[in-house]
Amino acid sequence: MTARRISDFGISIGKLPRGPRNALTDVPGVAVGHCTVRTQAWNTGVTVILPAQDNLFLHKVVGACQVLNGFGKTLGLMQLEELGTIETPIALTNTLNVGLVHDALVQYSIDQGHAAGVEVESVNPIVCECNDAGLSDIQHRAIGYAQVMEAISSAGADFAQGCVGAGTGTVCHSLKGGIGSASRLLEVDGKTYALGALVQTNHGMLSDLRIDGAPVGREIEAGILQEKVDKGSCIVVVGTDLPLSDRQLKRVLRRAAVGLARVGSYIGHGSGEVVVGFSTANRVHRQEARGVVQQTLLNEERIDLPFRACAEAVEEAILNSLAAAETTVGPTGAKKTALADLWGARNG
Amino acid sequence: MTARRISDFGISIGKLPRGPRNALTDVPGVAVGHCTVRTQAWNTGVTVILPAQDNLFLHKVVGACQVLNGFGKTLGLMQLEELGTIETPIALTNTLNVGLVHDALVQYSIDQGHAAGVEVESVNPIVCECNDAGLSDIQHRAIGYAQVMEAISSAGADFAQGCVGAGTGTVCHSLKGGIGSASRLLEVDGKTYALGALVQTNHGMLSDLRIDGAPVGREIEAGILQEKVDKGSCIVVVGTDLPLSDRQLKRVLRRAAVGLARVGSYIGHGSGEVVVGFSTANRVHRQEARGVVQQTLLNEERIDLPFRACAEAVEEAILNSLAAAETTVGPTGAKKTALADLWGARNG
Amino acid sequence: MTARRISDFGISIGKLPRGPRNALTDVPGVAVGHCTVRTQAWNTGVTVILPAQDNLFLHKVVGACQVLNGFGKTLGLMQLEELGTIETPIALTNTLNVGLVHDALVQYSIDQGHAAGVEVESVNPIVCECNDAGLSDIQHRAIGYAQVMEAISSAGADFAQGCVGAGTGTVCHSLKGGIGSASRLLEVDGKTYALGALVQTNHGMLSDLRIDGAPVGREIEAGILQEKVDKGSCIVVVGTDLPLSDRQLKRVLRRAAVGLARVGSYIGHGSGEVVVGFSTANRVHRQEARGVVQQTLLNEERIDLPFRACAEAVEEAILNSLAAAETTVGPTGAKKTALADLWGARNG
Amino acid sequence: MTARRISDFGISIGKLPRGPRNALTDVPGVAVGHCTVRTQAWNTGVTVILPAQDNLFLHKVVGACQVLNGFGKTLGLMQLEELGTIETPIALTNTLNVGLVHDALVQYSIDQGHAAGVEVESVNPIVCECNDAGLSDIQHRAIGYAQVMEAISSAGADFAQGCVGAGTGTVCHSLKGGIGSASRLLEVDGKTYALGALVQTNHGMLSDLRIDGAPVGREIEAGILQEKVDKGSCIVVVGTDLPLSDRQLKRVLRRAAVGLARVGSYIGHGSGEVVVGFSTANRVHRQEARGVVQQTLLNEERIDLPFRACAEAVEEAILNSLAAAETTVGPTGAKKTALADLWGARNG
Repeated sequence: MTARRISDFGISIGKLPRGPRNALTDVPGVAVGHCTVRTQAWNTGVTVILPAQDNLFLHKVVGACQVLNGFGKTLGLMQLEELGTIETPIALTNTLNVGLVHDALVQYSIDQGHAAGVEVESVNPIVCECNDAGLSDIQHRAIGYAQVMEAISSAGADFAQGCVGAGTGTVCHSLKGGIGSASRLLEVDGKTYALGALVQTNHGMLSDLRIDGAPVGREIEAGILQEKVDKGSCIVVVGTDLPLSDRQLKRVLRRAAVGLARVGSYIGHGSGEVVVGFSTANRVHRQEARGVVQQTLLNEERIDLPFRACAEAVEEAILNSLAAAETTVGPTGAKKTALADLWGARNG
Repeated sequence: MTARRISDFGISIGKLPRGPRNALTDVPGVAVGHCTVRTQAWNTGVTVILPAQDNLFLHKVVGACQVLNGFGKTLGLMQLEELGTIETPIALTNTLNVGLVHDALVQYSIDQGHAAGVEVESVNPIVCECNDAGLSDIQHRAIGYAQVMEAISSAGADFAQGCVGAGTGTVCHSLKGGIGSASRLLEVDGKTYALGALVQTNHGMLSDLRIDGAPVGREIEAGILQEKVDKGSCIVVVGTDLPLSDRQLKRVLRRAAVGLARVGSYIGHGSGEVVVGFSTANRVHRQEARGVVQQTLLNEERIDLPFRACAEAVEEAILNSLAAAETTVGPTGAKKTALADLWGARNG
Repeated sequence: MTARRISDFGISIGKLPRGPRNALTDVPGVAVGHCTVRTQAWNTGVTVILPAQDNLFLHKVVGACQVLNGFGKTLGLMQLEELGTIETPIALTNTLNVGLVHDALVQYSIDQGHAAGVEVESVNPIVCECNDAGLSDIQHRAIGYAQVMEAISSAGADFAQGCVGAGTGTVCHSLKGGIGSASRLLEVDGKTYALGALVQTNHGMLSDLRIDGAPVGREIEAGILQEKVDKGSCIVVVGTDLPLSDRQLKRVLRRAAVGLARVGSYIGHGSGEVVVGFSTANRVHRQEARGVVQQTLLNEERIDLPFRACAEAVEEAILNSLAAAETTVGPTGAKKTALADLWGARNG
Repeated sequence: MTARRISDFGISIGKLPRGPRNALTDVPGVAVGHCTVRTQAWNTGVTVILPAQDNLFLHKVVGACQVLNGFGKTLGLMQLEELGTIETPIALTNTLNVGLVHDALVQYSIDQGHAAGVEVESVNPIVCECNDAGLSDIQHRAIGYAQVMEAISSAGADFAQGCVGAGTGTVCHSLKGGIGSASRLLEVDGKTYALGALVQTNHGMLSDLRIDGAPVGREIEAGILQEKVDKGSCIVVVGTDLPLSDRQLKRVLRRAAVGLARVGSYIGHGSGEVVVGFSTANRVHRQEARGVVQQTLLNEERIDLPFRACAEAVEEAILNSLAAAETTVGPTGAKKTALADLWGARNG
């Protein structure tokens, strides 16, 4: 059985058409994989996004980032800002595990290099995180090389949402959060492009939750005892095959704030809100011999289209993370209820 | 007769209490003034915000800015970023008039300096703008020294909203926009502080308009023929008497994006979305003799309070700009209808 | 007689070859013009840089900026950062005159638009400044539309350096500063490109002055009585015909700090150190009909070449501003001595 | 025998007085420690800077960073930018080892927390790096928890410079680089403060090397065969007990570029030039109960003093890294000669 999406509740977000999978993997070549660690002690994991199928270190993708709130431990943004390229899979995991996941991606890159006859002596992994301490023993780092490699190996165009991978133990608007995704299709000069978002949701207060504008959180709040401070994070990964420069891409990523705000976040102090994005259109080749290369670039006057697509896809991806999640109990007995168990009964 | 506010339509935004004026001027010492230019050719003007009553050049306020979308002509942000202080009134006007308003604030500062026995040889005016070309002859600059001085002279704690000053000719979500304001009260350690927002609204598409989550724009769209690209701007000025450092203030200002998104903006390409803010708590004295000064500072762990206050006040200020505006016809016959004339009939 | 350059003193800076004019105008299509205002009261002016010969509003150039120290009043950087394009001439003038020069460029753009059948309702002038209050009556703004138009009209590939235009009243390392320029030639894939710098120098202390590493300032300090705080500015404009993206260009501009440091600046608090740059290689057309355009782009692995060129050209341009300047007396009797009159006697 | 400093060669940099140790540890409470790994395969290590002697997670220091060139893998800057605090020791190591060192600092913080009765579920280690692949087998990560703990345990006010810790295998201006340090004393209102810098030098070309302005690199170039591209990094850590806000501190750090430029760097593309800094003056307490706290702050008008101190200390620290280094041979036979062996013979 496929996990629910927010559309299964009769909700339709925005104006633009969805892609066939309604997921980040509607962008051609993009793959997503998870390794889920669910034991007595742990509800955690790692999720990887592969922007392309070939060797990313040799053939980088154009990349950008936008920090909406920087109270977080995401690694690798400095070089991404400077060079505007991504050269490893993007990994999402828990807060205290970013160092080991970084090291795993270093080893992966060295190994990939060896397979291609290239010595990797410097590589910039992108590792993002949310804090799943409420539902998992975060101090003991569960994610290492093996888990990262499992996630990479399992990556494909079809992937699970909800309580999987890096979303296994996350909490969103006091409900069970997780991994969510959505996409939009854009037409430019008669050609169709995709823009997709994938989120790891771990932010927000219940009373602030809005679903397509409706104050759903306030309505179901009576049934929930605890209301926490907004302390967590929301990681957003955006991909597209539109030919965007790193500056254009960064502008697009900034619209993730719109999606977050529409669902009820006011981007809290303790919530590391980080957006990482890539365009697969103009690859940057490490062994490029030419001094001057040709690129394609979106006419800036058309950029409202991906702006809107990003806002809509992020809003829907967050809602999908809620829709797909299942009620989860942590090692200390803490319980986070799924939206489907509270609101779904009436609306599903 | 007082112009309407969104609360007159039965709408209540957010959770925090409003200040007594529900306006930026709930922050003690802050004054706002307008000069409105409404002729056959022009629907334009200038609005000034005075963060304090004394000489700002001698006694600067802590300031910050946050550019949500930089397609705009706001002047003075470079030094504001570097030094974290504001030393003139903040002026809002139309796009092509910022140079002359800048020069007017230079002259004002020189004059104020002479009155205080100080030669002003360098001063950094802050001038923001929206494009009112649809309802006004923007190419002929109507705002000069006289208009700026009139706005400053008329500034006070009570001020008009809607089609006044810099909001005379602006358009918001295809309806008549203008100047709006709102405030929130915050309690820290038993002491009450105010945070207020003032907006000049000139952004958004009708079909995207949301009022407290409800898709009002879609509902009234049938009655409106034209639907434009989101091209304009939204200027947001935020003030508070909370003791915030420039970094903290900048974090607070970033939450203006939440207010904008809630009303339906996705922060369009052509819309210069700029937030300027100040704290009146720790004045910076030009003639400070001490090498090390004492300051107060909000404990960062309490910063969610002004974050939420900013998001709520900006959302409500935008709605107030719509509620207070009146249907306006421009020199070329273009007409922008007031929200009250469309939606108010049913809800007012 | 041509004014002196630092090479006339036997000084050679760096490793890369100079262009034929050793000036910013070695970049094809770039023109520079001045209007100098020298009266009893004033030693001031305006300098304009035209990145191209055609209508810049219709055919923008790729642009970027880098603020090394933002204690200054440069206008127009917000949109330059957001969009990565320049659409007017770049003007340099005195601190309190930036508003009027901004307005003059607005009028110029409207007029140029009319000539081309385009209504200009929004335009982003770039106006930079240094403070010449020591040698000029800065409170009375001497530069308006007529002066800006004179500078534009007189612009060409050959232009004066030293005490002209915006450099008429500036002071550098306590000596008479002014306008200086220099260029470097770069070869990429067998094709030769130019990178040029133009500076308006108004920064630095005498005792810190270095000429190609030699502590010249210390040596001549004995002969100078006054030593001031480093309060002024240095504006740097960099142009090239290399195909650089706005991000690449910004990286190049950052190396202006190297040139400044080599001459002895430590980038003082009161010195607004601002770098603005453009590439003429990929024009951005306002009336572009295509949704996706083709661009050329420098292979990032070759970017050390323009990095070095920028550092060298800026260092030499600053020295040229000193070499070309003439001893100047201001309205209050203040005198700033030319390098040539102090050091030149021995070395010239 | 104490390793040489550049002053042993008769070189004196700048105008300000040095601290008693002429090192970062002249700032009261600051300690530095190394773990050096020197084997057949490795010339690498880790260096830690402890900004204070007590628990940094409970009592954070004000911090800031400045990225001069972001082609590097430094971890932890995002949160440092957002919150302006540092809550772990700062670690320096080699490029591919940053993930494991990050994880080691996570464990260290958890352990320190346990000792203090606090559960650490989120912590932001700062880990900087240079690439020592030329002299060490970088693909096999030699630095883990044991090495980081050894560095922390050994930390004190007296510490070695040259080929130790993270500087064991680094190369600077084609000579043997390493760890260097220097300090300056500043007087404000009759009280003396210290500002110190510590560098890990791995940047620059020989022919560009300048020592106090003299083109030493060109002079000794004949004796050196290889001249490489500027590919490496220079990490700069700056500390002070001056009461600087994070914004002021960031401004101070930007002047590290001046020190780098004076020694001959033009801040090459491949060189990750990153500056991290802290002030020990206003500690930020995790368990602060008050909503508003008192702070001290340097009067911004005095900030030229730490600007100059930073530029001078960084310049001298780089030269000290060269002066203290010893000729080193790597596992593949590559040899990097010490400055002392080339230039010292004549000047020492």
